[in-house]
Amino acid sequence: MLIDLFSPSVQHSLDIAGIFVFAISGALLAVRKNFDVFGMAVLAEVTALGGGLIRDVIIGAVPPAAFTDLGYFLTPLLATVIVFFLHPEVERITKAVGVFDAAGLGLFCVTGTVKAYGHGLGLVFAATLGLATAVGGGVLRDILAHEVPSLLRWDRDLYAVPAMVGAALAALLLRFGALEGPAYAVPVVTAFVLRLLAMRFHWRAPRAWHRRSAATEEV
Amino acid sequence: MLIDLFSPSVQHSLDIAGIFVFAISGALLAVRKNFDVFGMAVLAEVTALGGGLIRDVIIGAVPPAAFTDLGYFLTPLLATVIVFFLHPEVERITKAVGVFDAAGLGLFCVTGTVKAYGHGLGLVFAATLGLATAVGGGVLRDILAHEVPSLLRWDRDLYAVPAMVGAALAALLLRFGALEGPAYAVPVVTAFVLRLLAMRFHWRAPRAWHRRSAATEEV
Amino acid sequence: MLIDLFSPSVQHSLDIAGIFVFAISGALLAVRKNFDVFGMAVLAEVTALGGGLIRDVIIGAVPPAAFTDLGYFLTPLLATVIVFFLHPEVERITKAVGVFDAAGLGLFCVTGTVKAYGHGLGLVFAATLGLATAVGGGVLRDILAHEVPSLLRWDRDLYAVPAMVGAALAALLLRFGALEGPAYAVPVVTAFVLRLLAMRFHWRAPRAWHRRSAATEEV
Repeated sequence: MLIDLFSPSVQHSLDIAGIFVFAISGALLAVRKNFDVFGMAVLAEVTALGGGLIRDVIIGAVPPAAFTDLGYFLTPLLATVIVFFLHPEVERITKAVGVFDAAGLGLFCVTGTVKAYGHGLGLVFAATLGLATAVGGGVLRDILAHEVPSLLRWDRDLYAVPAMVGAALAALLLRFGALEGPAYAVPVVTAFVLRLLAMRFHWRAPRAWHRRSAATEEV
Repeated sequence: MLIDLFSPSVQHSLDIAGIFVFAISGALLAVRKNFDVFGMAVLAEVTALGGGLIRDVIIGAVPPAAFTDLGYFLTPLLATVIVFFLHPEVERITKAVGVFDAAGLGLFCVTGTVKAYGHGLGLVFAATLGLATAVGGGVLRDILAHEVPSLLRWDRDLYAVPAMVGAALAALLLRFGALEGPAYAVPVVTAFVLRLLAMRFHWRAPRAWHRRSAATEEV
Repeated sequence: MLIDLFSPSVQHSLDIAGIFVFAISGALLAVRKNFDVFGMAVLAEVTALGGGLIRDVIIGAVPPAAFTDLGYFLTPLLATVIVFFLHPEVERITKAVGVFDAAGLGLFCVTGTVKAYGHGLGLVFAATLGLATAVGGGVLRDILAHEVPSLLRWDRDLYAVPAMVGAALAALLLRFGALEGPAYAVPVVTAFVLRLLAMRFHWRAPRAWHRRSAATEEV
């Protein structure tokens, strides 16, 4: 069943689902920043497609997937329409959005790694671009919205580390030719579960050594 | 006459004119941000050439036009010199600058669409890159100047929508092989006039549904 | 001896050294911005490799050097570890870091110019990309850290101008086929020394004409 699950057409559906939830987060930030409907659409598109765009430009896969697949392009516009009319309802289910976002994170860090590896990059670099695929759109979203990238802030639950683990795992499995069939789900689910746990238990990454101890002393 | 108007050499002159007015807006923002003359030149170059640069990197037309045509490169430096010595005078004719900027917007959204289409992109994507060509430089300018991109703010007169209409119109005409001779002017002038009307009547785009009604209730 | 100094392997060592000091400046800014260790690594990588990445994407040299050389990738992580544990000590030797940074600036503006020229760009554009190689990482660092790019601020000692002079000199020497052997050191050292002088004597670039005189009158 899992083999069917990741056939090309199902892979495409999962991509669309990931793009959709990322676009929701972009459109919601636009609402909070008081942007108009056009700004919502821009943030939705950039959040959903920006990570893959960065990856494709770096590996030379131009025009990028975002500019060849109409489904990829239209999905963020659908998310924009939904948030435009229903954003208080969407805000209320933030937790559910967070779960879907975690699923998108898990999926994109693996598909990004696979695509970069397929273009001949080394394993470390393929995993790095897998990470960039998963988190790049969110960084571009925050830069356009004139916010400190939430990816870099210490007071946010771990976001990049789950994607990093998933991408590294995918690269390892690729190395041993084992990222096939059901095994494809292993790094996706690992990243997904790690992100859910990070949200549930508010996992944080440490800050620089002395600053942290200084902060402790202050207390 | 219009056919002559858009011969290659006149097309190039129009490009230069559009680059010049975009560069003026970049250099003026640098003055307002209290940047030095080098910062003025950087913002002028980025504002004028950034949109085309993004387009060319995405369609794989490297090195981009901005790095092969010396006229494209030197024009923003000329704009910088003028603003450096005469910026109060230039500020005073802001309205005239706005008209020229609208002309640049109309021109770039069409040339960008045509170039992307010529590189084999679909119509929707070609029009999107036409829009990116017209507004991308301004977004990069605002990011470098550490401002909220004026493109995304709801309290600014419509800027992207005229370019979007022009780009879509150009794509449609391309589709039917009709973007030739005098017809080339149709989308350019449409975007130009729409932008002028938006400035004249302070057209705005709506914000998300409930927020807007909430704001109304507050009043 | 100087000919040996710039043999490929020594060139690579110098690149690594430049990457290391640029990465230190990125990691230190992350500490000041209170980012966690992951944010430190991101800023270190981006500061060290961002300029070359921009250059390589623009000239079409993909995948960029940053994604093919493991040494380039791991060096910023080493810098992150050092700053993580020893950042008060590193802050204390800021002046020494500044000297190394000046060396990186001198080196990168020349290697960037040479690489762009080798990909067929004209001299002016090659020098521009040499400048972008030297300063681009710092601009991306400041954008990610949500700061006004220090490159553009008038109240900072000249940073871009030394790199510009070095890149222009390198382009001139390339033009006359004279950037070989010991002559390679000429533009590197020129940019390096100019930057040291700018730091020592707090050289600034002028701001726009009237604003400056207005400021004088206020005093």
